[in-house]
Amino acid sequence: MAQHRIVVVGGGFAGLSVINGLKGTEADITLVDRRNHHLFQPLLYQVATTVLATSEIAWPIRRLFRTRREVSTLLDEVTGVDRLAKTVSLRSGAVLPYDTLVLGTGARHAYFGHDEWEGVAPGLKTLEDATTIRRRILLAFERAELTDKTLEADALLTFAIIGAGPTGVELAGMIGELANNILPPEFRKIDTRRTRVLLIEAGPRVLPAFSEDLSEYAKTALGKLGVDVRLGQAVTAITEEGVTIGDSFVPCRTVVWAAGVQASPAAKWVDAPADRAGRAQVGQDLTVEGDNDVFVIGDTALVNQVNGKPVPGIAPAAKQQGAYVARVIKARLEGKAAPAPFRYRHQGSLATIGKRAAVIDFGRIKLTGALAWWIWGLAHIYFLIGTRSRLAVAWSWLWIYLSGQHSARLITQKETLKSDP
Amino acid sequence: MAQHRIVVVGGGFAGLSVINGLKGTEADITLVDRRNHHLFQPLLYQVATTVLATSEIAWPIRRLFRTRREVSTLLDEVTGVDRLAKTVSLRSGAVLPYDTLVLGTGARHAYFGHDEWEGVAPGLKTLEDATTIRRRILLAFERAELTDKTLEADALLTFAIIGAGPTGVELAGMIGELANNILPPEFRKIDTRRTRVLLIEAGPRVLPAFSEDLSEYAKTALGKLGVDVRLGQAVTAITEEGVTIGDSFVPCRTVVWAAGVQASPAAKWVDAPADRAGRAQVGQDLTVEGDNDVFVIGDTALVNQVNGKPVPGIAPAAKQQGAYVARVIKARLEGKAAPAPFRYRHQGSLATIGKRAAVIDFGRIKLTGALAWWIWGLAHIYFLIGTRSRLAVAWSWLWIYLSGQHSARLITQKETLKSDP
Repeated sequence: MAQHRIVVVGGGFAGLSVINGLKGTEADITLVDRRNHHLFQPLLYQVATTVLATSEIAWPIRRLFRTRREVSTLLDEVTGVDRLAKTVSLRSGAVLPYDTLVLGTGARHAYFGHDEWEGVAPGLKTLEDATTIRRRILLAFERAELTDKTLEADALLTFAIIGAGPTGVELAGMIGELANNILPPEFRKIDTRRTRVLLIEAGPRVLPAFSEDLSEYAKTALGKLGVDVRLGQAVTAITEEGVTIGDSFVPCRTVVWAAGVQASPAAKWVDAPADRAGRAQVGQDLTVEGDNDVFVIGDTALVNQVNGKPVPGIAPAAKQQGAYVARVIKARLEGKAAPAPFRYRHQGSLATIGKRAAVIDFGRIKLTGALAWWIWGLAHIYFLIGTRSRLAVAWSWLWIYLSGQHSARLITQKETLKSDP
Repeated sequence: MAQHRIVVVGGGFAGLSVINGLKGTEADITLVDRRNHHLFQPLLYQVATTVLATSEIAWPIRRLFRTRREVSTLLDEVTGVDRLAKTVSLRSGAVLPYDTLVLGTGARHAYFGHDEWEGVAPGLKTLEDATTIRRRILLAFERAELTDKTLEADALLTFAIIGAGPTGVELAGMIGELANNILPPEFRKIDTRRTRVLLIEAGPRVLPAFSEDLSEYAKTALGKLGVDVRLGQAVTAITEEGVTIGDSFVPCRTVVWAAGVQASPAAKWVDAPADRAGRAQVGQDLTVEGDNDVFVIGDTALVNQVNGKPVPGIAPAAKQQGAYVARVIKARLEGKAAPAPFRYRHQGSLATIGKRAAVIDFGRIKLTGALAWWIWGLAHIYFLIGTRSRLAVAWSWLWIYLSGQHSARLITQKETLKSDP
């Protein structure tokens, strides 16, 4: 019998955990990703805010599987799937036949019908997004130091973060840290402590996935870092001049988008029903309806929990789905009974606020403050891939903790003096 | 009396060393650079070849002087100098008055009248240059793995480095290391050890600044890494299809330019005589003729040694010139006699070849092999700015030495599947 061919698309948490779970099976596995690296997205905000270097949170995918001879890695992009012929077409022109297909192609940020905001208000999903935001934050301080106009300096020292989920809260907190604790001794004309960070959220509280008391704690902790939290207020316009919150215009030169995501086109490729965010509806075995050989997992899949709510688009959920799919495929290859339907186990929600506070919601146990911050740090180091990254990130954090200096404060990519984008 | 105003343009080795040398003087110092970071250019090739991360060799300039209240840092670009009015005009529109002006604005790579080669054959002077070259090198291997055409794979696995000075030799050696020792277990279709690295030099030997026996040693060491050294051969054409060496065309998809530099426009700004490479001719006190208040130093200056040869465009020379200018300015401010004319002291030439060999030319003492490699490493760590960078680079090197894995193997900046540039 010919070897079973498994094609996995996407080298994120979902895809890698499928392949890790398939270790030891007799199957031919091809992993396709349009990037050469796996990215540890939960720490991306730290690259955007000068804490970590890009290479500390990204690893070449093919290196992860160098000892798995049955795994081939292709740097390529899916253009379509033919479910009848059971093939995947790639940008390079190659056509990959599959027996089993797993799509874990993630999500991008979405602007709710305002795509024109993207140029002014970048989101945070890739390393380039992070270095773009880092460049804009650092350039705002540099330009404020150069200008003679007070109003212009005020607008340059105003930062608006839209969306108060973990990414928004973490970005706002770290910009507050930069402005209050890192940059002040370096500027001669401006006082960077005058910086205003606006965190704008349409919903009624920050960190809506956490319990209400933790949301309240986070809001207070952000306030101490000088973050101005605006709840229940929607952004109605974003231009290079500033943001409009409801009817009120705030001059502001740096805006970051941390609200809302749009799934990859996976649902379209396989012609599956999708929700408004583009996520493919899958069954309790994570396959698309009517095709047992096509799995969709991670941020690009819509799976309901027992309580009727969808599984959240976070790394632990993607990993659990990947591990589950590996078990299903293994059972099929070995002719065993299918595992019980997928059940998401929520392990807890974590978010940091600046340098010394965090909130952790384990359900019954809730933690705040310095203890939560240390647990948050250890948990993230534990989940990083590879000994070297763990040591490097631990070391970077320890250095910042002891010296109070960030080390990745680089303005790169574009010419620094032209206006963005 | 109003405070003496010193404007230093360029935060490279030359500029920083002027400001370091002026510590303790009563003067108002403004440092202008169009980048926010000082770059340790001698290790830039290691970023281009995935050994080091960008933030390990670059530091925010304003952080270096955070405790020197008399030093202001401006992220801005010089557009002209008015020597009569004694002012510097900046891109932002600001006009800086000076009593003393120091220009240390460096050099870019030059294509000897073939500017059209720049898109196909990038040079290596900035962090963006390094990440561009890194992307192209890594993409070549990725594309070779994807293609079904043998001739195309051969062209993708052929790398041409033009110019066999230290940068060219170091790049060629590290590409050899990548292809032979790092990447082989990760690819399934191609054998990366089939990679051909061409090092093309119009002159008669590699490392012309070193003694002839060291050049010979370097050539042999390169050969062991699979580098094909072509001496006395000029490149006559470079296209996306390949390079033409003399009359012979070599299909090749990745070309790096490491031959020849062009000075910044400093000579034009101050209307000083310049050589063909655009370097401003300065006197033995490093001022331009007829104007004691304008110094030009570093790679953008042309200074003759006692032996009639020009001072080389390397970091130690820039540092010595910066320290000398600081002494001259100090003496003037204190009403003391001017120091003796500038005299360059050559401390030695160093270059590495791959992972375990290096050549060091201290004049009477010459070293090769593993010992030279260790001395090269220690010398570079010693010259890095800041404890953290020293530890980080030492740690990265140690990790690679022990694990055989490079950690900064990221393809970033542009979409990975479109063709470059």
